[in-house]
Amino acid sequence: MGFSRARRIRFSDCDPAGIVFYPQYFVLFNDLLDEWFDNIWTRGFVDYVVRCRFGVPTVRLEADFKSVSRMGDDVILTLNVARIGERSFELALDCKDTVDEQVRMTARQTLVTTSLDTHKSIRIPPQLREALAQLAPA
Amino acid sequence: MGFSRARRIRFSDCDPAGIVFYPQYFVLFNDLLDEWFDNIWTRGFVDYVVRCRFGVPTVRLEADFKSVSRMGDDVILTLNVARIGERSFELALDCKDTVDEQVRMTARQTLVTTSLDTHKSIRIPPQLREALAQLAPA
Amino acid sequence: MGFSRARRIRFSDCDPAGIVFYPQYFVLFNDLLDEWFDNIWTRGFVDYVVRCRFGVPTVRLEADFKSVSRMGDDVILTLNVARIGERSFELALDCKDTVDEQVRMTARQTLVTTSLDTHKSIRIPPQLREALAQLAPA
Amino acid sequence: MGFSRARRIRFSDCDPAGIVFYPQYFVLFNDLLDEWFDNIWTRGFVDYVVRCRFGVPTVRLEADFKSVSRMGDDVILTLNVARIGERSFELALDCKDTVDEQVRMTARQTLVTTSLDTHKSIRIPPQLREALAQLAPA
Repeated sequence: MGFSRARRIRFSDCDPAGIVFYPQYFVLFNDLLDEWFDNIWTRGFVDYVVRCRFGVPTVRLEADFKSVSRMGDDVILTLNVARIGERSFELALDCKDTVDEQVRMTARQTLVTTSLDTHKSIRIPPQLREALAQLAPA
Repeated sequence: MGFSRARRIRFSDCDPAGIVFYPQYFVLFNDLLDEWFDNIWTRGFVDYVVRCRFGVPTVRLEADFKSVSRMGDDVILTLNVARIGERSFELALDCKDTVDEQVRMTARQTLVTTSLDTHKSIRIPPQLREALAQLAPA
Repeated sequence: MGFSRARRIRFSDCDPAGIVFYPQYFVLFNDLLDEWFDNIWTRGFVDYVVRCRFGVPTVRLEADFKSVSRMGDDVILTLNVARIGERSFELALDCKDTVDEQVRMTARQTLVTTSLDTHKSIRIPPQLREALAQLAPA
Repeated sequence: MGFSRARRIRFSDCDPAGIVFYPQYFVLFNDLLDEWFDNIWTRGFVDYVVRCRFGVPTVRLEADFKSVSRMGDDVILTLNVARIGERSFELALDCKDTVDEQVRMTARQTLVTTSLDTHKSIRIPPQLREALAQLAPA
C-alpha cells in the first residue's frame, strides 16, 4: 500500500558521523511527495506550484528515528495518507531497509493547501483530494 | 532563558515558494546545538565528535510550524532543555521573529548520546549533563 | 580589502570524510553575497529579488581547493570584485584559515544580472554597479 | 558515451528564483559519481570510503552554466573522463535537457585520490584506474 520509491543512501546524504544527516530524511520525503504529485496532478507538481500558484507547506511534523541509515544502504520510502481534512491532510511516511524491511524512521506530516500569493489556506483542490483518497485508509 | 542566536533568513534557506524550506529549520537548529556544544564542551563539538567519537543522533522530533519565514526575515533561534534522562535528553527549540517575537515554529527533539564506533547509546557524559542542567527547568 | 565574514565550519557543512562537502563552499559564498547585498542595496537582497524581480545567476565558476577545511575550523570568507561588465560581473572569492591565513580555497565567479520574469540579462542596476566599483581593483 | 543518469529537477533542488540553486548541480554530480563508483568498485563507494578509508576530494572545478533548469525539467547528467594522472583524474561532466538535448551546464572537475586518515594523496587504486580508462578518450 502507498506510494513507494527505492533509494540508495548517498555520500551526500550523510554527515561526519557516517549516517544520514536527519534533516535530509525530510528532503527525501519532500522529493517523494513531489514525485507523487507528478503522478496525480495534470502536468505535475511544477504546474501545481508555478502555474496554479498553490503551495503545500508543512504545519506539523512528528518523526521517530528507530535505527540509523548508513551510506550505501538501500531503503524504500513510502507515503500513505492518514487523514484528509478541508484544507489540510496528514501523511504517514516511512523509510525501511529494502533487504530486511527494518524500519529506519517513520513520520507523520500535516500539510496545508495554500495560495502562494497570500500564503493563506485554500480548500484542497478536487484533483488532489481524489488522489489523496486513493491512499487513505478505508 | 535558553541559548539563543540571531540569524537572518538567507536566499539559500528558501524554496521556490519563497519561504524557508522546512527541513532547513532543522539544519539551523543543528547549527545552534553545534554552537552551544562549542560553548560547553572543552575544545568544542569537534572534540566531542572527532576525538571522543561520541554522537548525538535524534530519535524523536515534533515540530509545529505556525507562520512562514521569508527570505530577509530576522529571527532568533532558541534552545532550551525540557528533560534529561540517563542516555537521552529532550530539547525545546523555537524560532521567533526578532522584531515582533511572533513564533515561526517550535520543536521538541529527543537526542541520544552514543558511541560513534558502535552507534549504541552511552550514558550522558558528565560535562554535557552539567551543561544541560543549566538550561533545564528548575 | 573586500567584504569579509568569519564563519566556523559546522557539523552540517561536512561529509562522511569529515571535511567540508565541497558544494557547501558555494552555499557559504552565496550567503556571503546575500549579506553583501543587504549592505549595499536599499532594503536588502530580498528587495532586489522579490520586489524588483531581479536575479543574479552564475554563468561561470572556477574554483581551486588548496587544503581541506574540517569541522570546527574558523575561516574567513572574502568577496572582491575582479571585473565589471555591462550585464555581468566577476567576483574573486576566497576562504582562508582565520588563525594562520592559510588559503583553503579560492574561486572566480561570473554572475549576470537578469530579470526573474524573463530570465534574460539586464544592464547592471546603477546602485549595484556603484557598490561593485567600490570592491574593484583601481 | 559516458556514464549517464536521467533525473527530474525537484522542488528541493530549486531556489526562490525558481531555478536550480547552482551549488545543487554539484550535489547531483557527486551523486552521479557515487553511483558510478557503485558500478565499478567491488562492494561500492561505501567500501571505497568506509572500509578502504580512501577519499576523492575535488581540487579544481570549472563550470559553465549555459541555460537555466527549472523545477520539473527532465535532464540527463553525464560523466566522462578527460584525463588520468598518477594521483588525480579529471572528469568532464554535463547536464542536458532530456527532450531537446540543450546543454544546461558543463563542468570539468579534478579529483585526487587520498587516504582519509592522512588526507594525503595516494596513487589511484588499480581497480579505479581501469574503470576510469574505460571512460577516457582513446
